[in-house]
Amino acid sequence: MRIAVLGTGMVGHALATKLVELGHEVMMGSRQSGNEKAVAWAAGAGDRADQGSFADAAGFGELVVHCTAGMHSLAALGEAGVGNLAGKVLIDIANPLDFSGGFPPTLAVCNTDSLGEQIQSTFPDTKVVKALNTMNCEVMVDPGRLPGDHVAFVCGDDEGAKRQVGDLLESFGWTPDRIVDLGGIRAARGVEMYLPLWITLMGAVGGPNFNVALARQ
Amino acid sequence: MRIAVLGTGMVGHALATKLVELGHEVMMGSRQSGNEKAVAWAAGAGDRADQGSFADAAGFGELVVHCTAGMHSLAALGEAGVGNLAGKVLIDIANPLDFSGGFPPTLAVCNTDSLGEQIQSTFPDTKVVKALNTMNCEVMVDPGRLPGDHVAFVCGDDEGAKRQVGDLLESFGWTPDRIVDLGGIRAARGVEMYLPLWITLMGAVGGPNFNVALARQ
Repeated sequence: MRIAVLGTGMVGHALATKLVELGHEVMMGSRQSGNEKAVAWAAGAGDRADQGSFADAAGFGELVVHCTAGMHSLAALGEAGVGNLAGKVLIDIANPLDFSGGFPPTLAVCNTDSLGEQIQSTFPDTKVVKALNTMNCEVMVDPGRLPGDHVAFVCGDDEGAKRQVGDLLESFGWTPDRIVDLGGIRAARGVEMYLPLWITLMGAVGGPNFNVALARQ
Repeated sequence: MRIAVLGTGMVGHALATKLVELGHEVMMGSRQSGNEKAVAWAAGAGDRADQGSFADAAGFGELVVHCTAGMHSLAALGEAGVGNLAGKVLIDIANPLDFSGGFPPTLAVCNTDSLGEQIQSTFPDTKVVKALNTMNCEVMVDPGRLPGDHVAFVCGDDEGAKRQVGDLLESFGWTPDRIVDLGGIRAARGVEMYLPLWITLMGAVGGPNFNVALARQ
């Protein structure tokens, strides 16, 4: 499958690399074609890896993985282009973390709205599925690195899009029983508002390689 | 030990009943002495159970368990009285859930502040420990009802107070390895902002009897 990965940070690199390993053709998108980090990634990732602008990548991808920094996400997706994103599934991994006041960050949007909802309402012809934003990128693409039945949350308004994202998560190693469907895109509020606890836990646990499991009756 | 339980809802009942069972003397506090629910609880809970106003209970207790509805918590604690709360450990289980817009609720305070912090700053001579607000009351007092090593978070600025709360949690069945210290009271933001995800999960899981465990490397 042709997949766009928007974002050149740690999350983008981890996802793009995993997707190439799984046999997909991947274009990493950034603000300008020729971005140093994207070029370096594409050079090292083999024949199925390429790079370009946000618009280049969004036009190339049949599926879009969105992992830009949350404060710039709407601008980045605007550059990707409404038309390039229309009709496609967009996996939104971004968190609206605002570091302008230092660490720990606050959220730029929360409580009565979420970044996931803002992306869905700004791009109504795109099928937004919020997923994987509740864990470190190494865990996203290799859930087996942690013990136990820890979980991945998904939410979005389009059932077919969620099934497609579920299939992709399964290809990463997430078994179906560990993919928890939280309902429509409004549930993005909950998974984004979990981030302050996640950041605090990173300190308490001593690093980012952890995740939550559900204990149920 | 003499313990005040402020609040007559499900959480107050569950905690007060468990504390009496463990041998403590418990006074359930409410807005007015003679509150119907508090009287009924005290009548059924045995010789070590009593009821009174918020001020009666706060004056009686050597330790205070706070589980009023979050929208009214600061008013209720004001009625309990600065002097009655001074020098004491207060376990804050409340969540600032605002149901004025219907279900699901939003948070009345979040992101740059929290109810736990507001209580600590309003009552600086009280040792506030945020705990147990991330789960259903039946799980709080009986963690063994769920399988696995699910966790209880605590945070607060006073180390001795957190140790005392840890001992109380152990008496409920929380083993020390499952009590996760998140640091100072500022971490109340994270555990309160987890509530929207908890509420969504209640729907996804099919009921309130669940909790999170940590999968770590």
